[in-house]
Amino acid sequence: MLTYRAPTRDISFILTKVLNASGCLGRDGLSDDLIEGVVSEIGRLCENELTPINRDGDEIGCELIDGVVRTPPGFKDAFRSFANGGWIGMCLDAEDGGQGLPEVLNVALHEMIMSACLSFGDYIGLPQAAAKTLAHHASGELRGLYVPNLATGRWGATMCMTEPSCGTDLGLIATSAKQLSDGRYTVNGTKIFISGGDQDITENIVHLVLARLEGAPAGIKGLSLFVCPKFVPNESGGIGDRNAVRPVRLEKKMGYHGISTCEMVFDGAAAWLVGEPNRGLAAMFTMVNTARLLVALQGLGAAEAAYQNAAHYARERLQGRSLNGPLFASQKADPLIVHPDVRRILLGARAFVEGGRALALWLGLQIDLSESGQTDEARTAASDFAALLTPVVKSMFSDLGFETCNSCMQVWGGHGYIRDNGMEQLVRDCRIAQIQEGANGIQALDLLGRKITAENGRAWGAFKNLVRSDLDASAHLDEIKEWSARLLCALESVDVATRDILQRAQHDRNELGSAGVDYLRAFGLVALGWMWVRIVSAALAGDDKARRSEKLAVARFFFARELPKVEGHLVVAQSGADVLMALPSEMV
Amino acid sequence: MLTYRAPTRDISFILTKVLNASGCLGRDGLSDDLIEGVVSEIGRLCENELTPINRDGDEIGCELIDGVVRTPPGFKDAFRSFANGGWIGMCLDAEDGGQGLPEVLNVALHEMIMSACLSFGDYIGLPQAAAKTLAHHASGELRGLYVPNLATGRWGATMCMTEPSCGTDLGLIATSAKQLSDGRYTVNGTKIFISGGDQDITENIVHLVLARLEGAPAGIKGLSLFVCPKFVPNESGGIGDRNAVRPVRLEKKMGYHGISTCEMVFDGAAAWLVGEPNRGLAAMFTMVNTARLLVALQGLGAAEAAYQNAAHYARERLQGRSLNGPLFASQKADPLIVHPDVRRILLGARAFVEGGRALALWLGLQIDLSESGQTDEARTAASDFAALLTPVVKSMFSDLGFETCNSCMQVWGGHGYIRDNGMEQLVRDCRIAQIQEGANGIQALDLLGRKITAENGRAWGAFKNLVRSDLDASAHLDEIKEWSARLLCALESVDVATRDILQRAQHDRNELGSAGVDYLRAFGLVALGWMWVRIVSAALAGDDKARRSEKLAVARFFFARELPKVEGHLVVAQSGADVLMALPSEMV
Repeated sequence: MLTYRAPTRDISFILTKVLNASGCLGRDGLSDDLIEGVVSEIGRLCENELTPINRDGDEIGCELIDGVVRTPPGFKDAFRSFANGGWIGMCLDAEDGGQGLPEVLNVALHEMIMSACLSFGDYIGLPQAAAKTLAHHASGELRGLYVPNLATGRWGATMCMTEPSCGTDLGLIATSAKQLSDGRYTVNGTKIFISGGDQDITENIVHLVLARLEGAPAGIKGLSLFVCPKFVPNESGGIGDRNAVRPVRLEKKMGYHGISTCEMVFDGAAAWLVGEPNRGLAAMFTMVNTARLLVALQGLGAAEAAYQNAAHYARERLQGRSLNGPLFASQKADPLIVHPDVRRILLGARAFVEGGRALALWLGLQIDLSESGQTDEARTAASDFAALLTPVVKSMFSDLGFETCNSCMQVWGGHGYIRDNGMEQLVRDCRIAQIQEGANGIQALDLLGRKITAENGRAWGAFKNLVRSDLDASAHLDEIKEWSARLLCALESVDVATRDILQRAQHDRNELGSAGVDYLRAFGLVALGWMWVRIVSAALAGDDKARRSEKLAVARFFFARELPKVEGHLVVAQSGADVLMALPSEMV
Repeated sequence: MLTYRAPTRDISFILTKVLNASGCLGRDGLSDDLIEGVVSEIGRLCENELTPINRDGDEIGCELIDGVVRTPPGFKDAFRSFANGGWIGMCLDAEDGGQGLPEVLNVALHEMIMSACLSFGDYIGLPQAAAKTLAHHASGELRGLYVPNLATGRWGATMCMTEPSCGTDLGLIATSAKQLSDGRYTVNGTKIFISGGDQDITENIVHLVLARLEGAPAGIKGLSLFVCPKFVPNESGGIGDRNAVRPVRLEKKMGYHGISTCEMVFDGAAAWLVGEPNRGLAAMFTMVNTARLLVALQGLGAAEAAYQNAAHYARERLQGRSLNGPLFASQKADPLIVHPDVRRILLGARAFVEGGRALALWLGLQIDLSESGQTDEARTAASDFAALLTPVVKSMFSDLGFETCNSCMQVWGGHGYIRDNGMEQLVRDCRIAQIQEGANGIQALDLLGRKITAENGRAWGAFKNLVRSDLDASAHLDEIKEWSARLLCALESVDVATRDILQRAQHDRNELGSAGVDYLRAFGLVALGWMWVRIVSAALAGDDKARRSEKLAVARFFFARELPKVEGHLVVAQSGADVLMALPSEMV
């Protein structure tokens, strides 16, 4: 069975030393000590409550019995522990039942949840997302009724967007809503792939539903957002009548078995409008950066767990001899870790996970600053960064997470392929991250087609400046001079490619789609490299020698073996849409 | 559910026009017509017999009940169809109960089996391998008793190598054998991960077992090969007493559920020595090139099936609009195939599958020529090529197969992640190919540490000459001039890197392990590019205009988007072992 030790030391190091989160946020009461305490408490919770339920989550999974979903053993108790700790509402204001902590700590929370039990994450993430959406967009009455119940874990939540003929293309949503004479609404339609659509963990479930009001325009501009509870709250705010929304099917999936994935039928279900009619997508998209970052953490968290278990196995398993002759001659064989290719896999995992952790936490900080930054300018800059980097992080982390889980499973050989040891579960579980919250191809289009060009490239310009100024700040450090130089070159190459691709796209928008995925990866590798410079700078400034050695070694790996891939990706990104589009559809 | 149309036209085109198999082999009776007939018959069989059982093979899988394995519904009947068609013994001599067909046609057979039902393949491949091993190494009596029964599908077979503490490192094998006073042998020990260790398909199962005779040297030089039947044949060659070998456990795996994966206990089981004592590994390794090529075909075959089903879905599924504006304005959305990124996935799949098919079939031809070439020189040259390219093809095809299945699953979005549609099964099934028959990291070491350097680099020198002369032969074709030039550059880069890595390895063998995986991929991409030049040359020489357009377009994709990756892999391959080895084991 998999083991997991929450990397609370590294997370705290990044938050306090690399990113200086408390200083950046400048909130009353948010000290480094508080941050370390929170991280350590969450780590303990994930180790103790989630690691033990992960296997049953996969092997037993969810069941739909007589119209009610039964979650795997232990999920309800674990949820209760997180709720009781106040972690569901941690980022909500006190008036909404929350703790007023910054989003960046929620990033830390979700990384550790994903490592310990990936399929549990949505049970926490969904009420958080619903609460935040309602806190921002719902009327005072709805907010007062629903948000505290979500914040405290009394009620669960879902996001109901996808339909049988509408995944990426939300403009095709057919679920309808109509207003009754008393002002209330009813919703009719079928939604699929609804995570947590039903469960036996909370006494009520709050569905946020995108639907089309009678007479609304076609496409995404005719979508409104509704809150549609499983049980209609009664006048005292308790559980009232069962509403006409029910799970009719539970999907069998590749992995991710602990979360129920439901087909939901809304059959004239009572619902309440959230925000303005026909502005539903905008309300839902309040959450999009956070939601995508959490999906990125599925990749990152799974990769951390995979790394830990592969490293453990590589140190224990005796097989073969070092290529330079036996290193442990008295044993029947050397441990796997003497083999360069095994170390390639382990160091590759760390290059992604530790650099990615820093980037994810930095991104979490931007989400905080976009709301709580002290000036308009600061909020706009942070919002720009969050918008620009979110598709990069969502897509790259889910891709690299899958690749990392897969290569760490490879360390285990045949023992990784059998179910007993849990390595293959990580691969199956984290595979969902490449798909959900906008498939990765869409993220690449979002980056090149929208985020890079928005406001005349303002965000991209600011990002380049930020990276350059961070590299300047480290210019005095001998250890990283050469890496900085190479990173500047790579940044320059991405910049040149950006201009080239956008130039071509003026004549043919397919250039964006043709370049997207490879362009995004090149961009992401530069962003990871930037974080590695910051990590090493912070480690060199500290007095922990072991950390310094490790961070220098992993950074060296990154700059020797990962950054060089940037050029190849850019060549491919600039190879032209005609290569893909010339052949008629029926011949592709 | 997945559909599959056997690509018999493309396979025949490659065999007859690209590789000129009948001309190369120069066997009596082996005409292009015969080849096309065989390919088409096998294709029909795979479509009709295997595609329908693939889903149950995964969902129901094997069960161990009262000490006997039950295979999934339909597996026995399908096996019978292949046996009745004579396809199990197809490459054996007539005297062994075979058809005397070349190995290259068995490559075609297994590609199609792997596409239609990957987990069925071992039931065919194992008796083939066992029969060939016994035909080469067993005494006349053993050969006469066992080989025809294997060839005709009356009896099944296994290869028993792996043990709980011995996977890659066969020198650690602990299973023991001792000779009785009557000259017979008994075997004691435990073997794990034994494919087809027990099944209900054949009346008997022939285990080929690596074991250590009493007093034999430690390590791989003390291993002997034994044949150990489930039922000891009686004097008339029929089924006699139940032997003391039994399955004690069936592994639950990530995929590949149709084949039973057994832990086998040999408890003083009667056995017969095959070949010389202590020469067991050499006898087993007769089959290694063929066995590894079949594993490569797991990757290739799964990728072909994934491509077909992704292409189908991409043409049918309406979602979103072309980036240049609606192409099917009267429909509610455009089909996915208008999107460049979807085409990138599909053309990428074809660039691998069609180029890889040619390379696999070429490799099959080399295996034939290494045995039946007309001169010593020809046999040696073919044997060199087979030895050199086998690790490349095994490793690259299984890696690209997995990547391709995964990206084709991505085309289906969430509908690919649920089990109903079968796309995720392809990913889970073909994942085994990266592990079995020598994990891919080992293949890379084999290539750089042995195959490249063998006989002073004779095989590598001959391979470079072969590629160069093929490029010369196509030099008059305007369409491929530029590709040829780029391919020559890439070949030159691989050559330079080869010398550099081998030079460093003289001082530190870890350079081989550090370079291995990336070096192998660069090598493999050059080999694929070489095949694409040959494919396009053949297509240009033919009169099928559609084929010409398609092959030119896919080759263009390959040279624009795949070949450029060679340089990046070589940079990484030459980045030095110290990057990986400097950190102490406990800190990695």
